[in-house]
Amino acid sequence: MSGNTFGQIFRLTTFGESHGLGLGGVVDGCPSGIPLDESIIQSELDRRRPGQGGLASTTRNEPDQVRILSGVFEGRTTGTPIGFFVENTNQRSHDYSKIKDVFRPGHADFSYNAKYGFRDYRGGGRSSGRETVSRVAGGAIAQELLRLEGISIYAYTVEFGGIKAEVKDMEGAQDRSYFSPDPDIVGTWDERVIKVRDDEDTLGGVVEVRATGLPAGLGEPVFGKFDARIAAAFMSVGAVKGVEIGSGMGAARSLGSENNDPIGPDGFLSNNAGGILGGISSGQDVVARAYVKPIASILQEQQTITTKGEPTFIMVGGRHDISAIPRINPVLKAMMALTIADLLLLDRRLGVRD
Amino acid sequence: MSGNTFGQIFRLTTFGESHGLGLGGVVDGCPSGIPLDESIIQSELDRRRPGQGGLASTTRNEPDQVRILSGVFEGRTTGTPIGFFVENTNQRSHDYSKIKDVFRPGHADFSYNAKYGFRDYRGGGRSSGRETVSRVAGGAIAQELLRLEGISIYAYTVEFGGIKAEVKDMEGAQDRSYFSPDPDIVGTWDERVIKVRDDEDTLGGVVEVRATGLPAGLGEPVFGKFDARIAAAFMSVGAVKGVEIGSGMGAARSLGSENNDPIGPDGFLSNNAGGILGGISSGQDVVARAYVKPIASILQEQQTITTKGEPTFIMVGGRHDISAIPRINPVLKAMMALTIADLLLLDRRLGVRD
Amino acid sequence: MSGNTFGQIFRLTTFGESHGLGLGGVVDGCPSGIPLDESIIQSELDRRRPGQGGLASTTRNEPDQVRILSGVFEGRTTGTPIGFFVENTNQRSHDYSKIKDVFRPGHADFSYNAKYGFRDYRGGGRSSGRETVSRVAGGAIAQELLRLEGISIYAYTVEFGGIKAEVKDMEGAQDRSYFSPDPDIVGTWDERVIKVRDDEDTLGGVVEVRATGLPAGLGEPVFGKFDARIAAAFMSVGAVKGVEIGSGMGAARSLGSENNDPIGPDGFLSNNAGGILGGISSGQDVVARAYVKPIASILQEQQTITTKGEPTFIMVGGRHDISAIPRINPVLKAMMALTIADLLLLDRRLGVRD
Amino acid sequence: MSGNTFGQIFRLTTFGESHGLGLGGVVDGCPSGIPLDESIIQSELDRRRPGQGGLASTTRNEPDQVRILSGVFEGRTTGTPIGFFVENTNQRSHDYSKIKDVFRPGHADFSYNAKYGFRDYRGGGRSSGRETVSRVAGGAIAQELLRLEGISIYAYTVEFGGIKAEVKDMEGAQDRSYFSPDPDIVGTWDERVIKVRDDEDTLGGVVEVRATGLPAGLGEPVFGKFDARIAAAFMSVGAVKGVEIGSGMGAARSLGSENNDPIGPDGFLSNNAGGILGGISSGQDVVARAYVKPIASILQEQQTITTKGEPTFIMVGGRHDISAIPRINPVLKAMMALTIADLLLLDRRLGVRD
Repeated sequence: MSGNTFGQIFRLTTFGESHGLGLGGVVDGCPSGIPLDESIIQSELDRRRPGQGGLASTTRNEPDQVRILSGVFEGRTTGTPIGFFVENTNQRSHDYSKIKDVFRPGHADFSYNAKYGFRDYRGGGRSSGRETVSRVAGGAIAQELLRLEGISIYAYTVEFGGIKAEVKDMEGAQDRSYFSPDPDIVGTWDERVIKVRDDEDTLGGVVEVRATGLPAGLGEPVFGKFDARIAAAFMSVGAVKGVEIGSGMGAARSLGSENNDPIGPDGFLSNNAGGILGGISSGQDVVARAYVKPIASILQEQQTITTKGEPTFIMVGGRHDISAIPRINPVLKAMMALTIADLLLLDRRLGVRD
Repeated sequence: MSGNTFGQIFRLTTFGESHGLGLGGVVDGCPSGIPLDESIIQSELDRRRPGQGGLASTTRNEPDQVRILSGVFEGRTTGTPIGFFVENTNQRSHDYSKIKDVFRPGHADFSYNAKYGFRDYRGGGRSSGRETVSRVAGGAIAQELLRLEGISIYAYTVEFGGIKAEVKDMEGAQDRSYFSPDPDIVGTWDERVIKVRDDEDTLGGVVEVRATGLPAGLGEPVFGKFDARIAAAFMSVGAVKGVEIGSGMGAARSLGSENNDPIGPDGFLSNNAGGILGGISSGQDVVARAYVKPIASILQEQQTITTKGEPTFIMVGGRHDISAIPRINPVLKAMMALTIADLLLLDRRLGVRD
Repeated sequence: MSGNTFGQIFRLTTFGESHGLGLGGVVDGCPSGIPLDESIIQSELDRRRPGQGGLASTTRNEPDQVRILSGVFEGRTTGTPIGFFVENTNQRSHDYSKIKDVFRPGHADFSYNAKYGFRDYRGGGRSSGRETVSRVAGGAIAQELLRLEGISIYAYTVEFGGIKAEVKDMEGAQDRSYFSPDPDIVGTWDERVIKVRDDEDTLGGVVEVRATGLPAGLGEPVFGKFDARIAAAFMSVGAVKGVEIGSGMGAARSLGSENNDPIGPDGFLSNNAGGILGGISSGQDVVARAYVKPIASILQEQQTITTKGEPTFIMVGGRHDISAIPRINPVLKAMMALTIADLLLLDRRLGVRD
Repeated sequence: MSGNTFGQIFRLTTFGESHGLGLGGVVDGCPSGIPLDESIIQSELDRRRPGQGGLASTTRNEPDQVRILSGVFEGRTTGTPIGFFVENTNQRSHDYSKIKDVFRPGHADFSYNAKYGFRDYRGGGRSSGRETVSRVAGGAIAQELLRLEGISIYAYTVEFGGIKAEVKDMEGAQDRSYFSPDPDIVGTWDERVIKVRDDEDTLGGVVEVRATGLPAGLGEPVFGKFDARIAAAFMSVGAVKGVEIGSGMGAARSLGSENNDPIGPDGFLSNNAGGILGGISSGQDVVARAYVKPIASILQEQQTITTKGEPTFIMVGGRHDISAIPRINPVLKAMMALTIADLLLLDRRLGVRD
């Protein structure tokens, strides 16, 4: 496939560019009879809007109003494909002359040009972070399915600009600046943002995603492992450069006696596995982390070349976020929801519960 | 799909259990006319054999002789599926009574049982590391295709038991203990193994995989990104708990001004991106790292439960490796080769080079 | 997959219902740089509009204006997904009370209800023939790709209401009533329509689709045969109940000596194979026929049951076509185009021409 | 995909050539806990052996002993892939010089050569009818799954050499010459065979496949229709040139009032639909017919060309069947079983019964 479809059974296909008419998608494989309307999708879309982001994201207005085009009748899904579309209302006639013929460092300009021979240079086109609007909309539909199964997903920032947070309050994080699980760290993070903004630079961080209420038995062996799917799902999000499950990187530095999770009569006594054994869920919380690089668009002169290969310098102007965090959090949450919805439906047929 | 097929165009489907008749696979989608015989596959299989491993792996003999069953005629691939099989010659009648009804901590026993209702308890069955024999065989076929395209892949150990190695000699690593890129670290790693073996414990580490000679333009946008596929490929290998691309985790702690790769007239001036921009190859080396957990089978008593849920203790006996490293290295190399072969064929149709 | 995506590489995903907001789709996997605008798609959509149909189709006005939502920049495809949407402008507030709780014979009401538990009863919803609007739009994009490869596709009616036509003028058929390849038969068919309309009944027929200019080598062995894909493509169109390739049904009644196509120095001396040998194109014209059942909606009382299982009678009112022919012709043409576009891209990697 | 995998969830991947080491396959996606051993597969394989075929097939001995390589433990499927292999024991060192450089009319020699640049000329290699051994073995596993669901499949010959049979005894057909449903026609068919053999020619026919005990709701909308999948499944079998469902071709010549199936309180009053409405099963028997061309290998001189394009004549010698019937019947039965098994598992997730 050509990369714009996610999932095997609960399938999301997306389309659209940052400065085209809008962004949309089709969810195929959603079971019938699930209550759904635009407000449910809208509430998730609103989570990735600016403002949510404390100081780290711009405050420019992107209403991102979703419209359901098909697949819902009398307030319930019909089992047929759910089409949706979000119009781009914010594409003021920019002046693109500066980036039209120049490759922005850290962006996909160079590689897209190499692959396709030319590119939609308006704000990155398909390679823009705005593409994630469709992921969040599709993920919102997946979360409705998971809700009926008693599964919840949380995405919160455990590290920002090199400063770690303690996971004190996972639930509260959903309504806190930076989706921080630690109320006491927000101020420190704000200072970090102010400093970096003065330096005309950008920041990265680490987001943890946790799924609770999962049955044991989700995931398939070998290539279709639950954790392999999470890794693909997270790494497919533009700014993510690393993914770990459970004790993750730490496991590589620990001893077997430390890393194994003993099992007691009431269940596992630890969760270094991150809820997944042999690629299949154990019934514990599934815990994964995404390592997010700093925003590539900085207000500094950078060395690069033109599409003709001539050396030049570029300073990417415009209003840009200081960090993909926290706007990336609902995107990662959506990817986890899409992954689980797909595995849940897949397991209905392969698992012993059949 | 049910998890035992990898790839979309160059597709590997595997089967077999650790203590069944053997392990095999089918490669479908390999172009016609590629020189291939059993010795080519055998040489890769031999790389994952014990002995290669310095002190970290057992020395038990596993010939793992591969037999090509179809798809090759007069020394060349015909374009039809290449079936292969490796017989299990090493399955002495074990006594499994100890693990038959007990879940081994750190193994897939519990989750497989939850999913399938029962399991092949003989040495882990399908969830055993022996499953990777089929990956290495399939990867060997992929590497023949890549060789014709001038693409090479290296897998070497950059960290073992918490002790880092310098990448001094990538090529030599292929024939060095632990696939170490640093001749001077081997002794230290040997000492680490001796100590841990005395403690009846096991070790993890970090493997770096590098692909050179790649064209720019490989990979698809959004969900089909090159790095997303590498993440899935690596994380699908049993012991891997984390994956990173290029600067990876480090990127999350760096500034945009540090992490962006400037472009000079002769190409990129650094490679924090790991050779992938927006999910599409830039023509630089593709660099990815896998974080490998310690072997779960330790010679210590561990708390667990029986299949009936009764509390018990288990000490997993038998000869076991101290670490999945270095035997996992050719497996990760194979996964990278399979990923690139698939993207290469995929790109023949979507890339501008059409 | 859940049935709403066609193709493996050149992929069309469709959505929408007959009386919802509209019908749309996403084409993923279309190579970059192909000239495309809405008028190209519109001209194909106009072919399936009433009026084209001689007397057999209603004259109600369905503008079916297509809007391209993404994937095209400066008049060329970008290689990213092409989203499109056609609004339903013709959904006057019908009175559905008559069919809401009753299963119409010959329609999908009963089976959809059995599968999904409830259904969008407005004009058949997803199971309506209007679904084919998305196929024709997607097929129009495929035909642009084929045009660049020198491949043309023709769909013409070789039998209508039991009356056969001679294939005298394949090209002219595209602009003739009933897409008839025989100018002299049109009058006879008109009389047949008038008679059947008076009897308040409906008609079926046979459509032949011919692809010219194909290279030899398209199609894959075993399950992926060219003719297997055509069979699936045609049979997936609502009213089609039979498909044949080349001599088709006739082959079952002929002798091997009659049915084999001898080969002369300048090529094949006959084409009973319909241009496909062993599932792979021979370079001759690919010829397939679809057998189309009569329209299920008739102005007669029919015995049926309610959704509660109570016996009842229904007379499906409203304006309905007398036959799916000729409006089905551009749909079958589109399905052939989508099939060939997909195989063409697939072959770029597997064929020897690589 | 490259054509050698069938199904989306219950997936069969096959490999092997007529005169290579053997034929095999992998069934992935079979649920766990299904009783299975080699004898179950063997009994289906024996159905496609010569002798079964009355006079129409050769009597050469092909034991075709199947060996299960994986996926079965203690007599039940484990949910992991089931590998199997059938050795070719009948490949006496033929003299292929006659066909090595000549294209046999009616065979895939020409098109395979065009696609792959060269071919395994030994008895057709992958394009030989022997490839169906893997289909029958995979289908036998599918039928075990269907048996547990109360679904039965029958394949019987309704027309042979232009002579129709009445369906008097469907069950008995399974053990009758030609799999004939009419005991009284066997003698006539025998005479036809004797006559045609004297003429050194070959015959075709029509096979009907009927599935009973199906639930309503199987199949997916639009492209994934039940009948579309049957059409692809049947047309993928080498000798099949036409497929019809229910009234099939006849529907194209009937009136809507004749073709619609009225519904009574106890169910449908006729079955012109062949058990499928809008692509989804209605709960009636699913009825499909395959039109089989005569065997291409005839004992007559035929005009053709060499691989260099020079004109020549060929007489294909050796022992060949007079007709693909009845040996094709168990193959078509297998394809129906594989199709239904896949849809059954698919529906577990999408149907309202979830």
